[in-house]
Amino acid sequence: MSTEEILGEALSGIKPDEEDAETLRAVARDIIKILDTNAKNMGLDVYAVHVGSTARNTWLKGTKDIDIFLMFPPETPREKLEEYGLKLARTVSDHCVEKYAEHPYIKTVFEGVDIDLVPCYRVSDSSRIQSAVDRSPFHNRYVQSHIGELCDDARLLKQFTRGAGVYGSELKTQGFSGYLCELLVIYYGSFMNVIKSGANLRRGYVIDVNDHMDHFVEHPEPLIVIDPVDPKRNVAAALSEQKFFEFIDACRRFLKSPSMDMFFPPGIEPIDDEELKELLKKRGTLLVAVTFDSPDIVEDTLYPQLRRVEESVVGLLERHEFKVYRSGAWSDMDKCAIILEMLVWELPDIERHIGPPVDEKEHSLKFLEKYPDAYILGYRYVVDIPRRYTGAIDLIRAKLLTCGLGKNVAGSIREKFDVVTNEEILCLGDDLGKFLRELIRP
Amino acid sequence: MSTEEILGEALSGIKPDEEDAETLRAVARDIIKILDTNAKNMGLDVYAVHVGSTARNTWLKGTKDIDIFLMFPPETPREKLEEYGLKLARTVSDHCVEKYAEHPYIKTVFEGVDIDLVPCYRVSDSSRIQSAVDRSPFHNRYVQSHIGELCDDARLLKQFTRGAGVYGSELKTQGFSGYLCELLVIYYGSFMNVIKSGANLRRGYVIDVNDHMDHFVEHPEPLIVIDPVDPKRNVAAALSEQKFFEFIDACRRFLKSPSMDMFFPPGIEPIDDEELKELLKKRGTLLVAVTFDSPDIVEDTLYPQLRRVEESVVGLLERHEFKVYRSGAWSDMDKCAIILEMLVWELPDIERHIGPPVDEKEHSLKFLEKYPDAYILGYRYVVDIPRRYTGAIDLIRAKLLTCGLGKNVAGSIREKFDVVTNEEILCLGDDLGKFLRELIRP
Repeated sequence: MSTEEILGEALSGIKPDEEDAETLRAVARDIIKILDTNAKNMGLDVYAVHVGSTARNTWLKGTKDIDIFLMFPPETPREKLEEYGLKLARTVSDHCVEKYAEHPYIKTVFEGVDIDLVPCYRVSDSSRIQSAVDRSPFHNRYVQSHIGELCDDARLLKQFTRGAGVYGSELKTQGFSGYLCELLVIYYGSFMNVIKSGANLRRGYVIDVNDHMDHFVEHPEPLIVIDPVDPKRNVAAALSEQKFFEFIDACRRFLKSPSMDMFFPPGIEPIDDEELKELLKKRGTLLVAVTFDSPDIVEDTLYPQLRRVEESVVGLLERHEFKVYRSGAWSDMDKCAIILEMLVWELPDIERHIGPPVDEKEHSLKFLEKYPDAYILGYRYVVDIPRRYTGAIDLIRAKLLTCGLGKNVAGSIREKFDVVTNEEILCLGDDLGKFLRELIRP
Repeated sequence: MSTEEILGEALSGIKPDEEDAETLRAVARDIIKILDTNAKNMGLDVYAVHVGSTARNTWLKGTKDIDIFLMFPPETPREKLEEYGLKLARTVSDHCVEKYAEHPYIKTVFEGVDIDLVPCYRVSDSSRIQSAVDRSPFHNRYVQSHIGELCDDARLLKQFTRGAGVYGSELKTQGFSGYLCELLVIYYGSFMNVIKSGANLRRGYVIDVNDHMDHFVEHPEPLIVIDPVDPKRNVAAALSEQKFFEFIDACRRFLKSPSMDMFFPPGIEPIDDEELKELLKKRGTLLVAVTFDSPDIVEDTLYPQLRRVEESVVGLLERHEFKVYRSGAWSDMDKCAIILEMLVWELPDIERHIGPPVDEKEHSLKFLEKYPDAYILGYRYVVDIPRRYTGAIDLIRAKLLTCGLGKNVAGSIREKFDVVTNEEILCLGDDLGKFLRELIRP
């Protein structure tokens, strides 16, 4: 297949039917009409707008949901915005669920379609934004007025990044948001141009979609895409170094040998008992998992905390001279696991305790009093002491609770945690089996 | 015993009898007379002077040797100095051996006393020194004219540093020279004052014996003692950081509990088979020795090369992720051994091969071609490869010859080297057994 054929076939897998699209647009129109009417009846100076990928015609088949923003005057007090916003939203359906991102919004279903109803301020320009959600209508307007014929290219890029495992700006993935994909397509002019440029990206690259460079603020992120509606903001702020470089790699691999698989990678088989045993035997490493119940928090709160635990455990082990080959944090929102592949997990019975520099007399005398067997190594006193933890697992069991762990996860770990090894880890289920296959890769 | 009694008793162990001293002085006078006469007969404008600790009355009982310098006019050509110097020296005895330090000199025995006969230039002041030996007569004059009543204090300091294992500026020890001991006693006014100040020394301390600070050149050494006869020179240049701090430690220990043992430490028993086995079992470490024949070179040439080998082997091991707990270099001038106490000496079957940063495209593509299984870790490509050396000993055997080794030692190692472990190491003899006891200390 030629690249064009591949893109065509990929698109046919992700582009909604015209019929579905029309239904969705009709639903959006209906809701807006209802909301506008009810707002008037409630005496509110508020109107509804359709935003997000369904409004921009860039959504992927099967992911249909409609974001409706309720536009309040900017001078509305915050409490009023929340109170009347939620009240107005609830007029759409009897089955509403209140959710909370930066501020509350309503989730409901209307004519079989998932709807998010989000109250926000209709500020006059993006520099007057009062909360992050106020930015969405600006993003919407920008994309709608610039994307022109490139809606399908945006769909391709979203699916491509999804296939590469780098789609989604939530904190679990730390990848590319939908808006970022749309901007890249607008900036480079086509899906293939994004891929070609992506293959040559370098850390720190700045994409200035709307010539806002003069307003530029330095960002430490690996990729900077200046938000055309808010030049101080980096649209790629959530993108991690790891995902940035994985994207570059995916672009190069696609250019080298384009394939449908890169858009729709085959499902990952969970690694099984025998296979894992065999693999670890061949590698000679020890696989360790610290497991605990997931606290009752959303993914976006959980993942940063899991990464914190991962860092803490790795730090704990390395400080005690054990050696971690690789690590990862996993959760299915029921159980969590920090996975460690160990290179060195047993150590001799002695360790060196490092004392003060010899020429710090007072510290030295105290150290010598405590450790009469101390001797000099270079410029310091040191002493050989019995190693407290000769095994990595004992160390984790004894010291995990002394580590920085993140608030909610700490509570959960304090209640109960386990340390399991090698194929025992698979008792956490198939999703972990998939995660392990990706982490270790045979 | 009071400190004074200890010093008195220590002194009686190291101060030569008056009779011996008189004999020595008489021998020196006799030789000088002979040399001066023979010089005149040979038509040389040369005279002999007695230098060194026997001339300064600071030598230790049992270490009697006499240094006689043959003072040539500074305009004498170097070849003439050597030719006539050696010729004149040989007139003292029929049994002369030619030696070579910075330039040739004669070793002989006269009336039962070891004599060194060293030709040098009698330059008008120390800034005109043509070779290092020319400095000795200046040192001699300085000490003789400043030491006054402190000869015995100098003896005590020499013996004290010897007891602490830090006496001798040769490259094996990298400790305190006799001249340095004398200067310290002159500067501080007594042995006890040196010890008291020594206990408070700090790295980088500058001792300006003769107010030459204005000529001071910055030195990187841990202790700077500006040479009163040559202000650009650090008398303590040969002193290693390790020995400097060991001296400070010894001073503090002496002040805390003065004892004869610190002047005359009990002999070290070589560690024996059983004891070493027991000790290593308790520590859980592996002792490794790389052994080879000593090349036919003097200690001062050998030791820097041995340390180079030690550094190289430790670096080799650490680069391959093995872990060295401590190391040392030993020689009895027949055999040499680099000793390593290992904390980690076996590793799993995989290792991580680190590739280029992902955004270095050309390097990355080459790396991926070579390693199709490469994956991204942070900002780099890496790949898991079979570990070439899973054992430290295999690694040393395979790679020692690729290390930087020092010219002469490299030749010897290239001929043959062994890697032996644990109590096998003791086959190198009792001196190594002593060295091991000091290195490991139970």
